[in-house]
Amino acid sequence: MMTFQGSHILSVSQFDREAISKILSVSAQMAPYAMRQKRCHVLEGAILNNLFFEPSTRTRVSFGAAFNLLGGFVRETVGEENSSLSKGESLFDTARVISGYSDVIAMRHPKMHSVSEFSQGSNVPVINGGDGANEHPTQALLDLFTIQSEMSPHGKTLDGINITLMGDLKHGRTVHSLSKLLSLYNDVNITMIAPNDLQMPDNVISTLENAGHKVTLTDSIEGNLACDVIYQTRIQQERFASPDEADLYRGHFSLNKEIYRQYCKDHTVIMHPLPRDSRPEANELDTDLNDLDNLAIFRQAQNGVLVRMALFALTLGVEDKLTQYEKPITWHSNKNA
Amino acid sequence: MMTFQGSHILSVSQFDREAISKILSVSAQMAPYAMRQKRCHVLEGAILNNLFFEPSTRTRVSFGAAFNLLGGFVRETVGEENSSLSKGESLFDTARVISGYSDVIAMRHPKMHSVSEFSQGSNVPVINGGDGANEHPTQALLDLFTIQSEMSPHGKTLDGINITLMGDLKHGRTVHSLSKLLSLYNDVNITMIAPNDLQMPDNVISTLENAGHKVTLTDSIEGNLACDVIYQTRIQQERFASPDEADLYRGHFSLNKEIYRQYCKDHTVIMHPLPRDSRPEANELDTDLNDLDNLAIFRQAQNGVLVRMALFALTLGVEDKLTQYEKPITWHSNKNA
Amino acid sequence: MMTFQGSHILSVSQFDREAISKILSVSAQMAPYAMRQKRCHVLEGAILNNLFFEPSTRTRVSFGAAFNLLGGFVRETVGEENSSLSKGESLFDTARVISGYSDVIAMRHPKMHSVSEFSQGSNVPVINGGDGANEHPTQALLDLFTIQSEMSPHGKTLDGINITLMGDLKHGRTVHSLSKLLSLYNDVNITMIAPNDLQMPDNVISTLENAGHKVTLTDSIEGNLACDVIYQTRIQQERFASPDEADLYRGHFSLNKEIYRQYCKDHTVIMHPLPRDSRPEANELDTDLNDLDNLAIFRQAQNGVLVRMALFALTLGVEDKLTQYEKPITWHSNKNA
Repeated sequence: MMTFQGSHILSVSQFDREAISKILSVSAQMAPYAMRQKRCHVLEGAILNNLFFEPSTRTRVSFGAAFNLLGGFVRETVGEENSSLSKGESLFDTARVISGYSDVIAMRHPKMHSVSEFSQGSNVPVINGGDGANEHPTQALLDLFTIQSEMSPHGKTLDGINITLMGDLKHGRTVHSLSKLLSLYNDVNITMIAPNDLQMPDNVISTLENAGHKVTLTDSIEGNLACDVIYQTRIQQERFASPDEADLYRGHFSLNKEIYRQYCKDHTVIMHPLPRDSRPEANELDTDLNDLDNLAIFRQAQNGVLVRMALFALTLGVEDKLTQYEKPITWHSNKNA
Repeated sequence: MMTFQGSHILSVSQFDREAISKILSVSAQMAPYAMRQKRCHVLEGAILNNLFFEPSTRTRVSFGAAFNLLGGFVRETVGEENSSLSKGESLFDTARVISGYSDVIAMRHPKMHSVSEFSQGSNVPVINGGDGANEHPTQALLDLFTIQSEMSPHGKTLDGINITLMGDLKHGRTVHSLSKLLSLYNDVNITMIAPNDLQMPDNVISTLENAGHKVTLTDSIEGNLACDVIYQTRIQQERFASPDEADLYRGHFSLNKEIYRQYCKDHTVIMHPLPRDSRPEANELDTDLNDLDNLAIFRQAQNGVLVRMALFALTLGVEDKLTQYEKPITWHSNKNA
Repeated sequence: MMTFQGSHILSVSQFDREAISKILSVSAQMAPYAMRQKRCHVLEGAILNNLFFEPSTRTRVSFGAAFNLLGGFVRETVGEENSSLSKGESLFDTARVISGYSDVIAMRHPKMHSVSEFSQGSNVPVINGGDGANEHPTQALLDLFTIQSEMSPHGKTLDGINITLMGDLKHGRTVHSLSKLLSLYNDVNITMIAPNDLQMPDNVISTLENAGHKVTLTDSIEGNLACDVIYQTRIQQERFASPDEADLYRGHFSLNKEIYRQYCKDHTVIMHPLPRDSRPEANELDTDLNDLDNLAIFRQAQNGVLVRMALFALTLGVEDKLTQYEKPITWHSNKNA
């Protein structure tokens, strides 16, 4: 198995099944802290530098909160503020300097492979929080963790899972990475519902088929939602030539309670990487689903904190010390009810 | 009395006199921590998400410092960075996700009633830090706390107070909210000095008169400053059709040491929500007042920390545990001299 | 000696040699904490307000990390967000209010002398993080600390040091301040290599000569690099009338491994305030120097944390309590290897 301690987390491709299994099990250990049954201060005094050269409120806050939940301090940089880069500084130099002020770094950057380039200059572990169209490994890991934890009460595991991906599968970075991770498991039955022009890229399909999985491509909902998990995605408007072109596809695969009752199984769980477009013309997931217990989208977002806590604990080598550094919660919280 | 624990703080209208009294007394308990006679870490490990979708340096920093003063961590978002909203995400969804990363949320937003809408999706208490022209309840509470604490050495209470509001009373959100709070007390004598076009709105006056208070409207300083408290306000330039229109009113009711000596009582306290416009053409409160002990404006700003600490303690249910979590101050501070 | 406790740190001119010596020795005590051999929480519960009205990622993050390394909380303001100033608020008022939310303040501002003006309103120590073309005292102090610590293994001290300053010496704020500090020491031999139009200002040269130092001005590298320390600077493009004018000087004094081997001594240390311009047309310090142990530029940046930790400790009066508040490091770090 790979050694996590001191390592960079750059891509889902760097993990084998055993490593993924370790991440998922450490993530599960984080739930009592995130749910405020108790707290953990194992990283008290440690410093995360949260470098978001491309803004992303929820991912940034999730990384920062994850580090605070383990007791650590967070320093933060948001936007293209880094004037040093505009003065001709290399990512190597920036990394060498900032890592001198950090125990670990989370970084998001609009340019593909920039986080990897940066990591070569860093003296501390760097976790990729998204590098343009390339990778967003913590999203893929939280998606996998969510599938596992949602299926567990039904006696199901990732092996043999029956999953439907739906929406803009061409541009959706999250469904590509999730597919790569699913190729590490056995006997996955995966259905891709998308307009023909927005279907999953061939190389992702090949990866799944080479892993022995059954892949079905379709542009119709009917008969294709009787699965364990539906993973709905957003039309990635920013990746189209024009907003008008994106509009052509908006609202094609809206899901609401009526459709859910008609086509899904009792236990079918709905996932979405968020944000969901709640405007009437898009309405990817109708708000009438909000009271459906199988709508897992907010648990999924919450799981992002668990996975990021796990990656901090693993790269800083404290995953076996968590229980030594526990304390009770002193304040009122609805979460631990 | 309302239950604070787990509640949202959205408007001054949600409080009765007993609730206000509780907030003011818990605020007073916070003074030794803010003045660095000792410190309190009752919220150690807790996370505030400080969401300032509209920038406001002093309010944002005050909320953050208040949470740090109780030992908690602060995650922060500034400006209209929240790109999720522009991708069609509802405030409900944003709140549901961010509250998963928080123990409590403070939020400022330029849109009226947006904080209330947001709070409906939140799983943790939300404190309104200002929602456009609507409400800014913590400002009104710190104003009330300041009046009480400044009058206390003179044996006076909020009942029977004699107060003069002065300046742009039409657009000043703070004087509207303060008036609502004063309507919970008895026998207030309130004088409104403003140009006719910028006088207090009728509904605020009605609220005060219905409470049995004596309200006097005037556009003259003379004879109207012999009160307990003068509350001076800024011309709210941003609410006028044009800067030129605002200029018509600038400097009408400047206060300086000479006017103070001529018209005020010995104990008359001067308040102002800040920032004060110190440019010569405006000069709402002349800097020659800076050495006047009755100029309460900086104590008033400082009181904002106490009130925000109190609201965090109350909504998180730790107001009775403060003394259990005290520690000595390890560093030099002029504040505790 | 000056009293540090409760003082503002505004300019290198406020220090005598004894005060500098104190800062450098306290900085050296900070190394074990920054290198993660152990940690120190002497400022637990204290609040730094890090006010960067002019963005500067590395200086801001360095101040913030320094405070976290001593256990304190950091509140932060970045950019010209301070709308209060645009509403006519004086720096005095801003300082009086923000200092009520702080135990110490670090401030950077584009306007000369603004930090000094601000400090007059502050009730807590203010540390100048750069005020336009005027001063950047912590940079000068970290430069001095770096020279001392790099020379120490060779049995050399600041007295008698042989140093070459190179590049844009006219606009480089750092070389001006460093020269002022060197004038406190004895028998310094200082060579200034610059294009004639970018040579060191006369007043700086006078200060050095009045201190009895030997100053040599030249526009040639040859024969002038056989020194203890080379301090290379960046062409300060933003200070020229046009980028084209700056381009005239770019790349004049590039240093690479071949030049180093030809002209320098075995122990010659290379310094640079960073960022270095790594673009081929500039290439102030070639990346082929990166594996040269005498390239001190990243240790120099790291030393900024030590010096800022020292200034926080001194102004808050905890420099003698550090060892009382030590704790072991709980996580894996390559730094303490």
